[in-house]
Amino acid sequence: MTTVQDQKTVEEFRKPTFPIDPLFINRWSPRSFLEKPVADELLFSLFEAARWAPSANNSQPWTFIVARSVEDQAKFHSFILEGNLAWCRKAPVLAMALSRKTENEKVYKFHAFDTGMACANLALQATAHGLITHFMAGIDAEKARQVLDIPAEYDIQGVIAIGYQGEKEALSEALQQREQPNGRKELSEVVFEGSLDQKVNFTK
Amino acid sequence: MTTVQDQKTVEEFRKPTFPIDPLFINRWSPRSFLEKPVADELLFSLFEAARWAPSANNSQPWTFIVARSVEDQAKFHSFILEGNLAWCRKAPVLAMALSRKTENEKVYKFHAFDTGMACANLALQATAHGLITHFMAGIDAEKARQVLDIPAEYDIQGVIAIGYQGEKEALSEALQQREQPNGRKELSEVVFEGSLDQKVNFTK
Repeated sequence: MTTVQDQKTVEEFRKPTFPIDPLFINRWSPRSFLEKPVADELLFSLFEAARWAPSANNSQPWTFIVARSVEDQAKFHSFILEGNLAWCRKAPVLAMALSRKTENEKVYKFHAFDTGMACANLALQATAHGLITHFMAGIDAEKARQVLDIPAEYDIQGVIAIGYQGEKEALSEALQQREQPNGRKELSEVVFEGSLDQKVNFTK
Repeated sequence: MTTVQDQKTVEEFRKPTFPIDPLFINRWSPRSFLEKPVADELLFSLFEAARWAPSANNSQPWTFIVARSVEDQAKFHSFILEGNLAWCRKAPVLAMALSRKTENEKVYKFHAFDTGMACANLALQATAHGLITHFMAGIDAEKARQVLDIPAEYDIQGVIAIGYQGEKEALSEALQQREQPNGRKELSEVVFEGSLDQKVNFTK
């Protein structure tokens, strides 16, 4: 069985240029979930980690709605797009990440950025617990807003599937082809020295 | 000396409700930096960690500009607001986080959220290395765009000060008052069950 602990699989696809905590490369987004529930305390610790993310003026614009019951998950399934629904039905937990766009009635520019920080914490704590996460942007956001009655002050950032990793073979043939950790751009494509036209000297 | 390793200080101000990896509560945003350079490999590993963050369709919209030389830092100082300039001049590294708003010439909705995830990775890897980070939203973004010649396709998410923690006493009296890890909203204020009007039962 391919699990998040299967270091060999991750190392085959991901070669960090500089040494980093294994959490960062071990966190990837599988689609094969076991139909195995996540214990409350384990699940809550993911949101606990999210909670300690930084935000401008400590405004903490993140808000989460979890769907664990059959009824709540059915609501979520009604607005998740078909491509994601094909695999995420097995995930024992779905969580919508919302960002509050206002702070003391003023526009809060960094709501999405800060909520992203909280979600990265969530995903890394999941990895530390041997859980997997998969962020889905592929939802009908307008329908989600209606179904869950989400006020206009919140922006919908996506839905996170949370659970235990299942066997690759449990997926459809097409999804099995995609069930592997993906790579990244080179560091030199995303980090610059002083200005965007100046390369960093990354030689060791 | 108060350092990031000073567990007692952090534990005094931060009491997680559910057990989490210590990295998350040990990461806070001091203002007192030592004038001590960060070795290249150590610094690059922070961006390496950022690089492995997830993003929708693996689009990786994050881009960083680092300022390490006196010349590059002077440029950054020209657009950082006075309140931050008062303490961040000592930081050996400043890094601007940019998010690319387009992907294949289409608007990319999640650029800020994804860049937030990359920045959380960066901050946590820094904590793992015994470094500190402090995100600054307080910059003159319009001036920054001019000074660094940043194309319109990028949104400026902020500047991150990176380095080693200095003594609290090296700060002005006013800043010494604020030099402590801050708290967070209760978990019940940010996580809901099924909809925003339904509380999660957090009792253990």
